[in-house]
Amino acid sequence: MKAFDIRKPEEKLRASIREKIDNLNKPKGSLGRLESLAEQICMIQQTLSPTLSHPCHLLFGGDHGIEREGVSVSPREVTWQQMINFTRGGGGVNMFCRQHGFHLRIIDVGVDYDLSEHPRILNRKIARGTRNFLHEAAMSEEEFGKAINTGIEMVDYCRKEGCNIICMGEMGIANTSPSSIWMSIFGNIPLNECIGIGSGLNSEGVNHKQQILNQAVNNFQATNPNPAPADIIRYFGGFEMVAAVGAMLRAAETGMAVMVDGFIMSACMLAASQLEPNVLDYAIFGHCGDESGHKRMLELMNAEPLLQLGMRLGEGTGALCSYPIIESAVRMLNEMNNFENANITKYF
Amino acid sequence: MKAFDIRKPEEKLRASIREKIDNLNKPKGSLGRLESLAEQICMIQQTLSPTLSHPCHLLFGGDHGIEREGVSVSPREVTWQQMINFTRGGGGVNMFCRQHGFHLRIIDVGVDYDLSEHPRILNRKIARGTRNFLHEAAMSEEEFGKAINTGIEMVDYCRKEGCNIICMGEMGIANTSPSSIWMSIFGNIPLNECIGIGSGLNSEGVNHKQQILNQAVNNFQATNPNPAPADIIRYFGGFEMVAAVGAMLRAAETGMAVMVDGFIMSACMLAASQLEPNVLDYAIFGHCGDESGHKRMLELMNAEPLLQLGMRLGEGTGALCSYPIIESAVRMLNEMNNFENANITKYF
Repeated sequence: MKAFDIRKPEEKLRASIREKIDNLNKPKGSLGRLESLAEQICMIQQTLSPTLSHPCHLLFGGDHGIEREGVSVSPREVTWQQMINFTRGGGGVNMFCRQHGFHLRIIDVGVDYDLSEHPRILNRKIARGTRNFLHEAAMSEEEFGKAINTGIEMVDYCRKEGCNIICMGEMGIANTSPSSIWMSIFGNIPLNECIGIGSGLNSEGVNHKQQILNQAVNNFQATNPNPAPADIIRYFGGFEMVAAVGAMLRAAETGMAVMVDGFIMSACMLAASQLEPNVLDYAIFGHCGDESGHKRMLELMNAEPLLQLGMRLGEGTGALCSYPIIESAVRMLNEMNNFENANITKYF
Repeated sequence: MKAFDIRKPEEKLRASIREKIDNLNKPKGSLGRLESLAEQICMIQQTLSPTLSHPCHLLFGGDHGIEREGVSVSPREVTWQQMINFTRGGGGVNMFCRQHGFHLRIIDVGVDYDLSEHPRILNRKIARGTRNFLHEAAMSEEEFGKAINTGIEMVDYCRKEGCNIICMGEMGIANTSPSSIWMSIFGNIPLNECIGIGSGLNSEGVNHKQQILNQAVNNFQATNPNPAPADIIRYFGGFEMVAAVGAMLRAAETGMAVMVDGFIMSACMLAASQLEPNVLDYAIFGHCGDESGHKRMLELMNAEPLLQLGMRLGEGTGALCSYPIIESAVRMLNEMNNFENANITKYF
């Protein structure tokens, strides 16, 4: 896998950023989370007057071999049906991209259906779904590299167009399963505590999912005594997830802010941070969703999500809904008067 | 005081609204709080396809007699200084109104300063600040009626321009004090549990504030054994707060959605609901802030605030920041495909 050179933002600017924020005409700290968010964006862009330009959303689609084990309430065909639906503008991701002015790229990295006749879908299909990780690695090393590179390629397209803030989402039936496993292994949390209802399992379904995933992890551990993070990512991951990991790493490497969605994308950020911990300095967590364990996964990364709206649709929708908050933080820096130019008695 | 005729939204539409939401192409309930919000807006507008038109923000300013007792860390002059600052566009409220396309009206209902030379400030001054409620009622019945009527007048202006969603904010140094008292009396909660740091008191300051406010409530109760809600509102309220109460009631009476900001505006909604409980059907709570007790006040009204960003600036800023979430809920209803027209297998 390509090595990523992600630098920590230079600390020396931080004092000036804080001084600027504290001198805006408001009681100190009274804009709460907007203030810490503004500070983060200043640090990422290394400026006191950041901008958000050409926001882009990458939607990666892929299918999962593990779906064959009945771990999801939704059938596999929903992946390709939704991918086509996204080209028509009627999905959740579409309306929020329109609302907030995001350029949407829809990328097939591994959907189990021929989507090549749809010009709105970029064809980067690696295979028609991953292999079933109950029995074997979901993808080969070569496939893993291709997925990472697809993420890099897409970020580079966006960056060349002028994008400096990027969001990722996914469509892939059964992808809460690999997410739960990554969370369990990387976070050292018992697997069952990482497993939720996905798109709507009942308790019997959750039991079955737990059984299958535990078996899969046992099988993996029996043959991989000392796996590296990349081995774990590759063995369980979906193509759409690994592409997102590559995109996150590349975006951070090139100094972009990375908006992180719900359970699946948080699992991808967790995986990315296992490869390159500095990626977290560039991550803005948009939403804490309902999927069991998402809150705990966010805690593993010291993340403070902007929204808690009980969303669990995926596609990047939770993060997209948080974008105006990020805009508000940037406006604060660029448009709010300080005490001096507002002629206001500084009252603290 | 004028009587308000606030009708509960007709229940008969609710089943169709829920059916529409449940048939959008997403796992049932997966857009979380957006779904319940969409339902509320449909109910307010009595339609399956609501719109948000010409959003307006009313910013009422007024001073408080109780400020003379040292209950606030900010001096009284900050009220008029900020009012002028708002006319120049550099305040917190300005930037968020610009961001979300709100028409901002700035209304002086009781600032202790002559603002009449500022054409951007509507002059509805009732007096130069309220009287000190440590010793007497903050306002007379006539003044109370004027403040209510100013709220009505402003809402009617907005409505005639086509507004169907309205937000309120305030500028009034010391106005957490009357808010805490209203909360304590209307919520039957010990007063000290309703008192916080305001714009930044230290613990000594909070102790002093508690002492003064307890004394004021004792004095009031000694002379008013069975006060009606309107008596309580009038005795402690600020002109800017009573104007907001009038605006909230009028907006609900005319079928508008009412966005509710942080501690002060939540106290105004609580007061309004004491006069006309149905007003709550029209209330969208934007933000749960930091001021001690805000969460409990929201619970008194069964409110589910959209944001929790630790903001405590006032001016309506927390509610304004929540507006895109409301827009997202409306978009969901109008732009998201249902399972049938998206050609997707309904998977639950």
